[in-house]
Amino acid sequence: MKTSHHLLALGLFLLPTISQAQEKFDEQMIAKIREEGLQRSKVMDIAFQLTDVNGPRLTATAGYMKAANYAKKQLGDWGLTNTQVDPWGEFGKGWELKKSYLALTAPYYKPIIAYPKSWTASTKGTQSVEVVVVSAAEGDTLLAAYKGKLKGKLILIDATGSYKQSFKPDATRYADEDLQKMAEATMPPAQTGGPRVAQGSFPKPAPGELFISMHPAALRNLKAMAKSEGAVGFLSTTTRAHDGTLFVQGAGSYKKDDPENMLDVVIGIEDYLPIVRLAAAKVPVKLDVDMQSIFQTKDLQGYNVIAEIKGTDPKLADEVVMLGGHLDSWHSSTGATDNAAGCAVMMEAVRILKAVGAQPRRTIRIALWSGEEQGLLGSRAYVKKTFADRADMKLLPAHEKFSAYYNLDNGTGKIRGIYLQQNEACAPIFKSWLAPFADLGAATVTIRNTGGTDHQSFDAVGLPGFQFIQDGMEYNTRTHHTNVDSYDHLSADDLKQAATIVAAMVYNTAQRDEKLPRKALPAAQADRRP
Amino acid sequence: MKTSHHLLALGLFLLPTISQAQEKFDEQMIAKIREEGLQRSKVMDIAFQLTDVNGPRLTATAGYMKAANYAKKQLGDWGLTNTQVDPWGEFGKGWELKKSYLALTAPYYKPIIAYPKSWTASTKGTQSVEVVVVSAAEGDTLLAAYKGKLKGKLILIDATGSYKQSFKPDATRYADEDLQKMAEATMPPAQTGGPRVAQGSFPKPAPGELFISMHPAALRNLKAMAKSEGAVGFLSTTTRAHDGTLFVQGAGSYKKDDPENMLDVVIGIEDYLPIVRLAAAKVPVKLDVDMQSIFQTKDLQGYNVIAEIKGTDPKLADEVVMLGGHLDSWHSSTGATDNAAGCAVMMEAVRILKAVGAQPRRTIRIALWSGEEQGLLGSRAYVKKTFADRADMKLLPAHEKFSAYYNLDNGTGKIRGIYLQQNEACAPIFKSWLAPFADLGAATVTIRNTGGTDHQSFDAVGLPGFQFIQDGMEYNTRTHHTNVDSYDHLSADDLKQAATIVAAMVYNTAQRDEKLPRKALPAAQADRRP
Repeated sequence: MKTSHHLLALGLFLLPTISQAQEKFDEQMIAKIREEGLQRSKVMDIAFQLTDVNGPRLTATAGYMKAANYAKKQLGDWGLTNTQVDPWGEFGKGWELKKSYLALTAPYYKPIIAYPKSWTASTKGTQSVEVVVVSAAEGDTLLAAYKGKLKGKLILIDATGSYKQSFKPDATRYADEDLQKMAEATMPPAQTGGPRVAQGSFPKPAPGELFISMHPAALRNLKAMAKSEGAVGFLSTTTRAHDGTLFVQGAGSYKKDDPENMLDVVIGIEDYLPIVRLAAAKVPVKLDVDMQSIFQTKDLQGYNVIAEIKGTDPKLADEVVMLGGHLDSWHSSTGATDNAAGCAVMMEAVRILKAVGAQPRRTIRIALWSGEEQGLLGSRAYVKKTFADRADMKLLPAHEKFSAYYNLDNGTGKIRGIYLQQNEACAPIFKSWLAPFADLGAATVTIRNTGGTDHQSFDAVGLPGFQFIQDGMEYNTRTHHTNVDSYDHLSADDLKQAATIVAAMVYNTAQRDEKLPRKALPAAQADRRP
Repeated sequence: MKTSHHLLALGLFLLPTISQAQEKFDEQMIAKIREEGLQRSKVMDIAFQLTDVNGPRLTATAGYMKAANYAKKQLGDWGLTNTQVDPWGEFGKGWELKKSYLALTAPYYKPIIAYPKSWTASTKGTQSVEVVVVSAAEGDTLLAAYKGKLKGKLILIDATGSYKQSFKPDATRYADEDLQKMAEATMPPAQTGGPRVAQGSFPKPAPGELFISMHPAALRNLKAMAKSEGAVGFLSTTTRAHDGTLFVQGAGSYKKDDPENMLDVVIGIEDYLPIVRLAAAKVPVKLDVDMQSIFQTKDLQGYNVIAEIKGTDPKLADEVVMLGGHLDSWHSSTGATDNAAGCAVMMEAVRILKAVGAQPRRTIRIALWSGEEQGLLGSRAYVKKTFADRADMKLLPAHEKFSAYYNLDNGTGKIRGIYLQQNEACAPIFKSWLAPFADLGAATVTIRNTGGTDHQSFDAVGLPGFQFIQDGMEYNTRTHHTNVDSYDHLSADDLKQAATIVAAMVYNTAQRDEKLPRKALPAAQADRRP
C-alpha cells in the first residue's frame, strides 16, 4: 500500500433508505467456495513463493519479474487463460541492493542495522567516514555554516525531543464498536476541491516529542550542497524506526535520464540518536560504510500480471469483473504484508473458483500491479489504456462492459467488511453477499472511502472500485514498508478467510443479472497522483 | 540482570503483626534529597557516559575497563573516597566484536541482522557458505544422518509451529491491583531444598507454538560433530527474536584454558525461518558471513568499582551501608537497561547525597559489579573476601559491621517499592521510609523474594540484601540482553525518581540507631550459582 495521509473521508449526512429486493446468490456455490477456501487453502504456499522463495519485488527489478513470471505460470497451471506479463508503459530504472554494511567504528565497534533507500548511489567499496550533524533549525537560513565541511562525510539532521516507549500493542483487531461506527457512517458533503494541507506548511513537534525533520526546501538546498561538495551521503531515520524495525522506501526519482540519487541510508533511532548526541558532545564518531547497488536500465517498461477465467454466458462473457492487488514491494524485506498478502489472497481466490468448478457468467480477470508504491502507476496505466483516461474522461468501449474491481492491500488482517467508496447503491448488495460470512467477522459495509491503493485508479474514471476492511494487525507498527515485512508476519487463518470471501464476492458479481451500480461519472482532472 | 527462571517465591503463610514504633527519619534531609534528585538530576548524563560514549561493557574487555575507570573518576570528582577499580579474582578471557556481517546471497540478496554470541570464534574473512538444517526431532538418535555433511556449513536447528503477532503492549507498568497483591503476599513455607525442575526434562511446545530447540545432550553431540568435521558454525534464534530485536548472550565457557567456542550467530526469526523453509523446499541457500572478534587474554582478572562516603559518627563510621548494580553488559548493544540504568541510578544517588551535604553516621559504599551476567561473579567474590564464604559460613569481622545492601537491576522502570527478601522485620522500617514517596508511586513493601541479581550474593551469607520493585516497561519484550538495549530506551523521569528514592533509603539506613534487622544465618552450602 502506498503511503497516504488522506485515507478516510468521514461522512456527515444521513444515508437515504434504499428500497431494493434482497440480492440473490447461489448458496450452494458459496458453500463450496467456503469449504475449499477454509479447508484446502493454498494461500500460504503462494505467499511462500512470493516472499521466501522470490525475495524483494521492487518494480523493474529481476526480483519483480521473477515474481510476475511465477504468478503468470501458476495462474496458467490452475487453468486461467489469457495469462500475460503485460507491459503498461515506461516506468524507469530498476534498482537492486547487492551489499549493505554499516558499523560504528569509533568511539567503539557496533554493527548498525541499515538499508539504503532505493535508487541511491553506491559507495566506493568500504569507506571509513566521519559525520556532520546539521541543525534542522538552522537549515533554512544558516546552511552556510556547513559550507565546505561536507566532503567525504555522512550527514545527519539534528533531532529534538526523546523517544517514548509504546504502551499500546503492536497488533490490533477491530473491536465491535469500531465496526459499528464504520457501519453507521454517512455520506460526506461534496468535496470543496481545495487541498487540506496549507501550501508550505511544515509540522511542528509537540513539546518533548521526538522530531527528526528538516523543512523540505532547506533539505533540498542541503542535498545540493552535499552533492557539489562530494559528501558520501545521508543517514536517515524516522520516529517509527525502533526496536530494529526500520521503515525503508525510496529517495527521489528513477526516471531514465535522472541522475543517481545521493546515498541515503536508513538506520534506527537506537543508532541514529547516539551519533547525534556524540557529535553534540564533541566525541569523535567514525563509521565504516559499504553500500553496493545496481541500476537496471536494459528494460525500462513496467509490467502487470493479467489472467482470466473466461465468462460462459454468451450475453455477459464480454463483461468483466476484476480483482487484484499490487505485486511490487519495497526492498528491505520480502514485502509480505505489503503486498504479497493481497496477491496471494487474490491468486488463491481464483484458484478456489477453478477448484470448485465455477463457470462464471461474466469474465473474471485478476490483475497483479506494479509501480503501486510509486503512485499506483501500473493500475492507472492499465485503466487508462483499457477503460478511460481520467485526464479527458473519454470512455473506451470496455468502460461500459465493466462491473467492479476488488482490491486487497492492507496487510495480513482478515476481512471485516468492505468500503463502499461512497457508492451507496452497492450497500444492500454487499450486505447480502457478506451475510454468509458474518460468523467469520466480515459483515460490515461502510459508506466511507479508503485510499492509498489501486482501487482508486478505477474509482477515478467512474468505475466501481472497492477495497476491503481488514484488521490492522501489525501493519502500522511493524510491517508496512519495513525490513521485517516477511512471511512470518503473515497470519494464515486471516488470509484463508480473506481469499474465501473475495472468491465469493467476485463470483456473485460475475453471476448478477446486472452489473454493479455506479456513482456519477467524475469530471476530467489533470493527471496527478491519487 | 542475569536470566533466571526462579524470580519469585510466592508466600503462603500469614505475616505476623509486628509491633514496632514508627521509624524516625530526618524529614528535612529527605526533602533536600528529593529536591536535588528531581530538580537537578544528572542521571541521564551518567547514563549517556555509560552507554553512548562508552559502548558495550562485557566483563574483561576494554569496554568494561573504560566504564569502570570513568565511574571511579566520576565518583572521586564528586568527593567520594577510597575509589577503587578492585580486582576480585580470575574471571577469564575478554571477547570483543570487531566485525559482524551476514547476508543471504541466494536465492537473492538480503542483509541479515546478526550478532555472534560472545566467546565464539571468527570466520576466515568473508566466507560464502551453504546451510544444513538439522532436525531437532532426530537429534538424539539419528545424528548419524548428518555425518560427513557439515564441513564448511552453517548449521541451523529445525523449527516447528509458527510465529504469532503480539496483541500485548511492549511496555507495561504495574497496575494498583498488582502492587496490592504483592503487598498482601505472605511468608512462603520453608524451602524443601530440592530443585524444582526434574533432571533431564526438556520443554515441549504447545500445538502450533513456534519452537526452535534441541535437547541439550543432542546439541552437545551435534556441536562436537560439527567441530570435528570443520563446520563454519551455527545460526541460532529464539522465539523472542522478532521485529529486529535480537536476544544475544554468550556461547560456552571463557576460562583461561578453554578452547574458543564454535561460531554461533544469533539472527531473528524473520531471517531464520525462511532459511529453514527454503532448505525444506530444496531451494539452494547461500550466505556471506564475516564475523571477526578478538579474545583478550592479557588480564584475566575481574574488577568491581568501589567508592565510599565516609561515615561521620565515631561509633558507627566503621559500619557500612552499601548500594550497587552491575556495570557489565552483554555485547550487542550498550546495555542501557541492563544495567547502565541501575549503575546510573546508584551513582546519581551518591551524587545527590554529596550535593545535599549529607554527613552520614555510617559509611556509605557504592559497588558497581562485573561478571554479573556470568553468575553474579563480581559481587559473590567481593562478599566472599569481605564478609563471609557461603561454602563454610565462616564470618569475617566486617560481617558484623554491615547494615544493608540495596540493588537495582530490573531496567528503566521507576521504583514501585521493595522486596523484603523474606526479611519480615524490615517491613515496618521500609514502610515508614517509603511513605514520603507514595506520591511517586513507590509505597509497596512485599515479603516476596526476587532473584537473578547481585543482592543475592549478600542474602546468601545472611546479610540484608534488597532489590527494588520496578515497573517492567519493555524489559522482557525489547531490552533485556538485546541489540536495542540502548540509551533511547531509558526513561529519564523514571530514573530520576529511582535515584531520589535510593538516596533516601541509603541515607536513612546510614542514620538509623541500629543496623537493619537480619534473617537467621543460612547454613553453609556448596558453591553453586544462585
